[in-house]
Amino acid sequence: MEVTDRIVLTIELRLDVQEFYFRYAECLDGGRLQHWPEFFLDTCNYRITTRRGLRQGPDDDIMSLAGKTTLRDRMAAIGQSEDYEPYTQRHYVSNFRVQAAGPDELRVQANFQVLRTYPERPTGFFVSGNYQDRIAVNGGRLNFSEKLCVLDSDVAPESLIYPI
Amino acid sequence: MEVTDRIVLTIELRLDVQEFYFRYAECLDGGRLQHWPEFFLDTCNYRITTRRGLRQGPDDDIMSLAGKTTLRDRMAAIGQSEDYEPYTQRHYVSNFRVQAAGPDELRVQANFQVLRTYPERPTGFFVSGNYQDRIAVNGGRLNFSEKLCVLDSDVAPESLIYPI
Amino acid sequence: MEVTDRIVLTIELRLDVQEFYFRYAECLDGGRLQHWPEFFLDTCNYRITTRRGLRQGPDDDIMSLAGKTTLRDRMAAIGQSEDYEPYTQRHYVSNFRVQAAGPDELRVQANFQVLRTYPERPTGFFVSGNYQDRIAVNGGRLNFSEKLCVLDSDVAPESLIYPI
Repeated sequence: MEVTDRIVLTIELRLDVQEFYFRYAECLDGGRLQHWPEFFLDTCNYRITTRRGLRQGPDDDIMSLAGKTTLRDRMAAIGQSEDYEPYTQRHYVSNFRVQAAGPDELRVQANFQVLRTYPERPTGFFVSGNYQDRIAVNGGRLNFSEKLCVLDSDVAPESLIYPI
Repeated sequence: MEVTDRIVLTIELRLDVQEFYFRYAECLDGGRLQHWPEFFLDTCNYRITTRRGLRQGPDDDIMSLAGKTTLRDRMAAIGQSEDYEPYTQRHYVSNFRVQAAGPDELRVQANFQVLRTYPERPTGFFVSGNYQDRIAVNGGRLNFSEKLCVLDSDVAPESLIYPI
Repeated sequence: MEVTDRIVLTIELRLDVQEFYFRYAECLDGGRLQHWPEFFLDTCNYRITTRRGLRQGPDDDIMSLAGKTTLRDRMAAIGQSEDYEPYTQRHYVSNFRVQAAGPDELRVQANFQVLRTYPERPTGFFVSGNYQDRIAVNGGRLNFSEKLCVLDSDVAPESLIYPI
């Protein structure tokens, strides 16, 4: 039974991780920015960079936010500022690679592709890349302690305002 | 054992739901239109709309079919009509969100992206969006009682003839 | 218990198959070509063709390699030749359809979409299609005995040099 139990738990965790990413994407695709920080720990990092930027270090980050309070402030600022862009996102998250780093933390990689749609316009490609994340596991609850979005292209897309 | 069994069944159902969508997509990507209605209950609805159309109500549906007989008639009509378009589809279904609505019914959301290929032409983007479906569970058998395809763009693509 | 055990194993195998494809894609997306042959048996076939090419037979293959030694030689040759193209790939593998063909072999289909990025350029669509593979199962170890990549478009993309 021990072996079976271990397998069951492992499988459940693997599926729970996928579901966590799918809820995260659903939040962004639905435009619920104010809910987005809740996927993170209080102490956390959210970064967007490129393949080349990743080699050159954090100074080349396209976006870099530290701490859930900062994430909340930024989302509130977007809602009030002229930065607002009326596009919607559509995420495709796949190719999950889960690696346990300890009893309370997972390291997870996944590929993402985000399409973007402006009102009255056809949908178009927005960004693609690879998530390289750390997820804290607390009971059955998952939260990002670090989320690193590495874009495939060194050419940053226009109007990269919302999280991805 | 009860807890373990419950987990196992839940996991199996989650994977069975994904497999159901993958068989559905395989049917359409393979061009087997006459087989497509078999994924539905006798009493069913199949609708394609847009994000904006969804807010405005069923009158704005791009396609709306009620009942498996209607689905079959439409597929037979496509085969005989000048509507025929020689393109093939390629579905990418991901970001599954399964919510049980009762012992015999599931509510499932998933993201879809469909590419389209005409003979002698490069493959191109066709449509993207979000399935918002109701699935009847009868023993181990799954069937759509309602399938709602919400396109991201308000601009309907040309030649949206086949189901997606 | 027997039934439960069988289900557990089946679920695990289904997830292991997905993970096998995700590791395969990770290898190619990371540009580690010299590691790519290790996903295959010593006796194996790797083929890329199109939907139309598949109907017309192996003579129309875009790429056809037999045996792990041949795969290794080809990867070494790419590294040394003028064929070298500085693009990176990003794979999205989904819509898995797993069928047991025997106690030691699986037949697996999956949809793939590959994006491509050249330095200093935006990411673009590269190829899409359907894997139609045979996988040998030896203990917990999976290896391709046959990997057939069927491209959706009959128009072969430029610079299809690396495996997909």
